[in-house]
Amino acid sequence: MKIYKKAILPIGFEANAVACGIRKLNKLDLALFYSHAIAKASCKFTSNKILSAPIQVDKQYLKNNRDFKAIIVNSGNANCFTGNFGLRDALQVSKDLGSCLGIKKENILVASTGIIGRRLPVDKIRRAIPKLILGLSSKGIDKAKLAIMTTDTFAKEITVKLNIGRKAITLCGVAKGAGMIAPNMATMLVFILTDANILQGPLNRALDIAVDNSFNCITVDGCMSTNDSVIVLANGVAKNELIERGKNFDLFVQAIKLVSLELAKMVVKDGEGATKFIQIKVNRAKNFREAKKIALSIANSNLFKTAMYGENPNFGRIVASVGASGVEVNEKDLKIKVSPLSKKDINVDVSINRGNSSAVVYTSDLTPEYIKINARYN
Amino acid sequence: MKIYKKAILPIGFEANAVACGIRKLNKLDLALFYSHAIAKASCKFTSNKILSAPIQVDKQYLKNNRDFKAIIVNSGNANCFTGNFGLRDALQVSKDLGSCLGIKKENILVASTGIIGRRLPVDKIRRAIPKLILGLSSKGIDKAKLAIMTTDTFAKEITVKLNIGRKAITLCGVAKGAGMIAPNMATMLVFILTDANILQGPLNRALDIAVDNSFNCITVDGCMSTNDSVIVLANGVAKNELIERGKNFDLFVQAIKLVSLELAKMVVKDGEGATKFIQIKVNRAKNFREAKKIALSIANSNLFKTAMYGENPNFGRIVASVGASGVEVNEKDLKIKVSPLSKKDINVDVSINRGNSSAVVYTSDLTPEYIKINARYN
Repeated sequence: MKIYKKAILPIGFEANAVACGIRKLNKLDLALFYSHAIAKASCKFTSNKILSAPIQVDKQYLKNNRDFKAIIVNSGNANCFTGNFGLRDALQVSKDLGSCLGIKKENILVASTGIIGRRLPVDKIRRAIPKLILGLSSKGIDKAKLAIMTTDTFAKEITVKLNIGRKAITLCGVAKGAGMIAPNMATMLVFILTDANILQGPLNRALDIAVDNSFNCITVDGCMSTNDSVIVLANGVAKNELIERGKNFDLFVQAIKLVSLELAKMVVKDGEGATKFIQIKVNRAKNFREAKKIALSIANSNLFKTAMYGENPNFGRIVASVGASGVEVNEKDLKIKVSPLSKKDINVDVSINRGNSSAVVYTSDLTPEYIKINARYN
Repeated sequence: MKIYKKAILPIGFEANAVACGIRKLNKLDLALFYSHAIAKASCKFTSNKILSAPIQVDKQYLKNNRDFKAIIVNSGNANCFTGNFGLRDALQVSKDLGSCLGIKKENILVASTGIIGRRLPVDKIRRAIPKLILGLSSKGIDKAKLAIMTTDTFAKEITVKLNIGRKAITLCGVAKGAGMIAPNMATMLVFILTDANILQGPLNRALDIAVDNSFNCITVDGCMSTNDSVIVLANGVAKNELIERGKNFDLFVQAIKLVSLELAKMVVKDGEGATKFIQIKVNRAKNFREAKKIALSIANSNLFKTAMYGENPNFGRIVASVGASGVEVNEKDLKIKVSPLSKKDINVDVSINRGNSSAVVYTSDLTPEYIKINARYN
């Protein structure tokens, strides 16, 4: 398995992005990912009860088919809490793109990120679509990865290449994160494109495993977004032996887990105002679920996060968070180790002597800069 | 019912505080509340799974009797996560006080607040006890209310006087709050002293009702402490008709609710670094539980809290928090009203069209000052 710290599109994919005017100052704000061959799609969306319009549209499209060719994404507007208008707007975007690409709107997935509660400027998007399509190229991923960013300070990208039998396959992932990052995802958009030839069922299972161990194990501010989406397109162009189960499936899982975990970590590293990258590992729990519950209870504690920012070894706050998780931890069984706080990367190890399971969660510190960013963002 | 914005001890109670040296700079750090007559006690403690030593001792004492005469409280050290040593220390404090007062240690309740994980300096406390007792007076409450403070910027105190039959009774409450304030209480200590003559069962029920509608409806930072305690002593010296049920019970509930809610609001107003006092009311919910769940989801959202600090009317963050609560709210039924953000007091009204229940939660904004305080506190 070869890992590249940049986005390299797999065979059969192209991308592009333009500044269509949703955001100010001529910033890239509209991205397109396109597969020349029909691709299978697998998606994971936020568990927030209020869903953005694009997610509602995607869910509808995914119900009736799994054949997709494109993903269109805008930043600067979440198209959420916009009612029936918002739904119509999201549909319209896929319709406009479909008619220019010569495909059905149902073969397109849509995603949005940005401010909640404002109408999506569909006219601006419609006018930009021809240019968006004409500029498609395999290098266009370098624009697309920038267009999806909001308060992100760097692009999140990774590519993994591996062999399935004698054929090389590629998985390329890009993400946007920054704020509203919490378990069960957050204003986080992730796009993973692969030329792997894989059955729908195994693709879904692989994504489930990958998300559970990556995007659902990170938290920046404990806030769950209405727009989180992880979208995978697999177009089969690599013509590898069909991935169903066994060794090939395990290899694919390993690759998609790696892509997901690396992107998830980048999201945390770029957490709004973050100065620390903190790994919290809970060991000797009864099961993964309770280990993760404790790790997240610590990771979401404002008092813990400010202590990390202040390089203040206030272990009491970790103790209090462990107890606040609701897991029946015995005081005398609780062991806590924290690596030197002066470093940027910090490891917190907690052991609770209840079993043999463990979980790892990643988070950032809480800083005055986080407040500055979010007090003014609108 | 007469309300006084200061602590006035009921008949038969005295208090005092001294600087015993747990905290630096000669700050008051040891307080005593004393009842000349035997008093009934009713207590509510944190639901954190890691309990401070004083709470473990109190629970043991409360199991075997309900007759109490004193509460001794220190600030500057939480005596938590201190293992068997900590338990022995807390027992020792009650033993030392008991022998000086000529009562059993089991007739004394203990409470601590401050840093977690350090041994309580019992020798300093022992040496200070005689002075603490000698200085007891009805005016001593004005020292005691200061001694329990940690990062609090003002003393939290209230007194209510009312008639039960022809007799006047008094309820006097003092509290410390500031940080680690979350539902199911937080590093919050509350002492309510009353001369009411009331049965144990009704006293417990009245406190349950009061806490549910006050201390369990506030959140500063979502962090749940290991030391929260609400302790009520009722010494019966007012010689009112015994409160059991009916009108007298209702009056007592009304009074203790008022005392609790006012203290709870003061705790939020004095939230670490707070510049805003925010009331979140959720209306038209199916039941109180789901209304409160939504209100707390909003109140604990860092993004919402920073928006309030920035006077940024970012309603999307309220929408996202409502959805993140897990309650099945329909987007089209969700109505949100926010009062002008330039004011110090802000009202957020949310209506969800699911029923006729409502809940009110109080919180503060999240500010750079909160981070400053907690990055350095130890």
